[in-house]
Amino acid sequence: MKKINIGLIGLGNVGSGVLKILNERKALLAEKIGLEINIKKICDIDPSAKKKIKLNKNLFSRKIKDIIDDPAIDIVVELIGGIHPAKEYIIQALEKGKSIVTANKALLAQEGRHLFALARDRGKSIYFEASVGAGIPIIKILREGLIVNKFSGIFGIVNGTSNYVLSQMSEQNRTFKEALAQARKKGFAEKDSTLDIEGIDSAHKLILLTYLASGKFVGMQDIFIEGISHISLADINYAKEMGLEIKLLAIAKKEASELEVRVHPTLIPSNHLLSSVSGIFNAIYVSSDLAGNMLFYGPGAGQLCAASAVVSDLVDLTADIKAGMFRPTLNISIDKSVKKLRKIDDIESRYYIRFMAKDQPGVLARIAGVLAKFGISIASVTQKERKRAQFVPIVMIVHDAKEKNLSEALRIVDKLNIISGKSVAIRIEEI
Amino acid sequence: MKKINIGLIGLGNVGSGVLKILNERKALLAEKIGLEINIKKICDIDPSAKKKIKLNKNLFSRKIKDIIDDPAIDIVVELIGGIHPAKEYIIQALEKGKSIVTANKALLAQEGRHLFALARDRGKSIYFEASVGAGIPIIKILREGLIVNKFSGIFGIVNGTSNYVLSQMSEQNRTFKEALAQARKKGFAEKDSTLDIEGIDSAHKLILLTYLASGKFVGMQDIFIEGISHISLADINYAKEMGLEIKLLAIAKKEASELEVRVHPTLIPSNHLLSSVSGIFNAIYVSSDLAGNMLFYGPGAGQLCAASAVVSDLVDLTADIKAGMFRPTLNISIDKSVKKLRKIDDIESRYYIRFMAKDQPGVLARIAGVLAKFGISIASVTQKERKRAQFVPIVMIVHDAKEKNLSEALRIVDKLNIISGKSVAIRIEEI
Repeated sequence: MKKINIGLIGLGNVGSGVLKILNERKALLAEKIGLEINIKKICDIDPSAKKKIKLNKNLFSRKIKDIIDDPAIDIVVELIGGIHPAKEYIIQALEKGKSIVTANKALLAQEGRHLFALARDRGKSIYFEASVGAGIPIIKILREGLIVNKFSGIFGIVNGTSNYVLSQMSEQNRTFKEALAQARKKGFAEKDSTLDIEGIDSAHKLILLTYLASGKFVGMQDIFIEGISHISLADINYAKEMGLEIKLLAIAKKEASELEVRVHPTLIPSNHLLSSVSGIFNAIYVSSDLAGNMLFYGPGAGQLCAASAVVSDLVDLTADIKAGMFRPTLNISIDKSVKKLRKIDDIESRYYIRFMAKDQPGVLARIAGVLAKFGISIASVTQKERKRAQFVPIVMIVHDAKEKNLSEALRIVDKLNIISGKSVAIRIEEI
Repeated sequence: MKKINIGLIGLGNVGSGVLKILNERKALLAEKIGLEINIKKICDIDPSAKKKIKLNKNLFSRKIKDIIDDPAIDIVVELIGGIHPAKEYIIQALEKGKSIVTANKALLAQEGRHLFALARDRGKSIYFEASVGAGIPIIKILREGLIVNKFSGIFGIVNGTSNYVLSQMSEQNRTFKEALAQARKKGFAEKDSTLDIEGIDSAHKLILLTYLASGKFVGMQDIFIEGISHISLADINYAKEMGLEIKLLAIAKKEASELEVRVHPTLIPSNHLLSSVSGIFNAIYVSSDLAGNMLFYGPGAGQLCAASAVVSDLVDLTADIKAGMFRPTLNISIDKSVKKLRKIDDIESRYYIRFMAKDQPGVLARIAGVLAKFGISIASVTQKERKRAQFVPIVMIVHDAKEKNLSEALRIVDKLNIISGKSVAIRIEEI
């Protein structure tokens, strides 16, 4: 049986999972693919990682060159994460004629354009199924299963930590702080959870999904990013009364010839499938022109989930290598109907708005007057409490408005003496 | 650019969709895969089908041998449906060294074991993505994306017609008859909808899903099949009050070393994702050991949905042909931990039961007494109306019971003089 040699860089959580699967499912894989996937070398800077290797301690090395410089190694699996030195290792490996499997969404989001181009030049491939949605084969689905489709929208819950936090708030009536503490206690949030909570990780994944769906490789600076740390339990509950659920969505959406790419807390109808995606689960809702609206759902994190995706990439790559094929561009073609990116100021959306306004006659007239000046019309409005002459929440849904107009209107409303503090606005998405 | 020639048999709904896509997306496909997929001949017994061909009428033929006997044709796309002559055409094409793309679930369910073996012998492939879940790439997901996983359960809503009917009953409070009439009016049910409504079509698809998940090719006689035509609106509403929703599920489930394969109306918790799958949509819920619990959702029918799947198969096949690969077994391996199929009598399940019982003291004691004799314990019971000395519905949920014991108990209960008619029992699935 033909043997494909791989070098594994990084024996952390996912790396150990890959090692475990390749050891335990050797026979199953050989039977299915008619090839042996052989781990030739495992590299980790931490010498104690060696303990995780049960079968053959000689596989272990602390020197990266034992992988990069070994001509017998066909595939390098990079699982150390972060930008450096992952980027350098991948570049060196490609230059030595090796193909790459990686789960490194931060690196691909930042350097993917360059790395994919380098792979193409060298006739090698970069596979990255584990970088979005853990075990959900969303990358294979987009680039192979739906290959002939054009996409008008991708709406993803792609960060398990923030979805867990929002679910805890919505389902358990916890405040953001309590929910985050609970996530940490459960091991679903890291000590510094900024990347997850502030939407950065979701934006990394959105860059990859956008690339797969449209061929456009946008940068972090192109994406409007807003996290969930400012979301209050009160707003979640008010929105729920109006049949809306809150989710941190990564959105790539085509409007005419423009593409919107944004990550922000989003209100969606409670009966939409995405609203039922609870806890650390991920789901990607895809609007395609031929196959229609689809949803792909599964755990968003977990050692074996991600390792399952890495191994499926290894299988595809070994088949490519056996057949002498190479698919560096991953079948991605550019959607030429997309002419430009739309800035957040120019998007149109319905909004949920909450003002803290004085409970006295004439207040609504003044707020509505400002909104009207900006062409914003009110779909519904409710005063949530009664406390004569004190500040009480007024909750409003407005019809489609341009973001720029809305922010401008709210800036003026917030200066009125009948208003206390900064108004809250949350975008409502019609999916 | 290398050209792969295909012959298309059947220019009906899906066939026309495939023709349309291949014509309109020629450039996109060529760019993505670096190959030209060229329709060399289209065959249909109906001469009027020729009218559907816009570009080159010479492509049309009424003679199947123009495809089968043409050595330049690499791939035969069979889209006529039914067993004969589709089976004969596929066999002849394989024997002439061609690979196959088909959407014919009925044929594959009945003859797949033989056809897949023949393909393997000839070193050719049969691809069938469009046969289950229309455009949802569930076959690719199971055989490639989740290749290294073992599956403990597959729960599929795989028939759009029956799901539409049940949704209409549950959401619009229509009777079965009214809901089916509505489905016909909307074009979601054929005049003779027996295959859909009675679970036969779901069973065909279940055979294919079971094959992909376990390597076992079960026959129709191995599957317990119960349709939805006997489901009453009253039971749907009573179940809903108990937090349960009804779905026609195709289930392949491993219990220890046994495999259960069954299609029947099933009650599931209303907050489960599958409960939100409404109308003609399909969804397949998959329990895998590494990647976890996943759901794949999309339209269950539609010309372009199915055609999208057929074209994705064509793309994979052309890549195989270009690379000189062949994947006739579709990477399927046999789950050796499955020792036997479990008969419906031996399954264990919770049940929803409705009796029509006389409204008089002592009735519940008599029913409960019979159940107790068979070791069946009651989780909850509610009498739904009060009409002294008349027959009223008594609705019950029982804890896990063996199907055989339950049927036997109900047979005895139904003979009691306090009971009118046949009791209703609906299985409750813990997904």
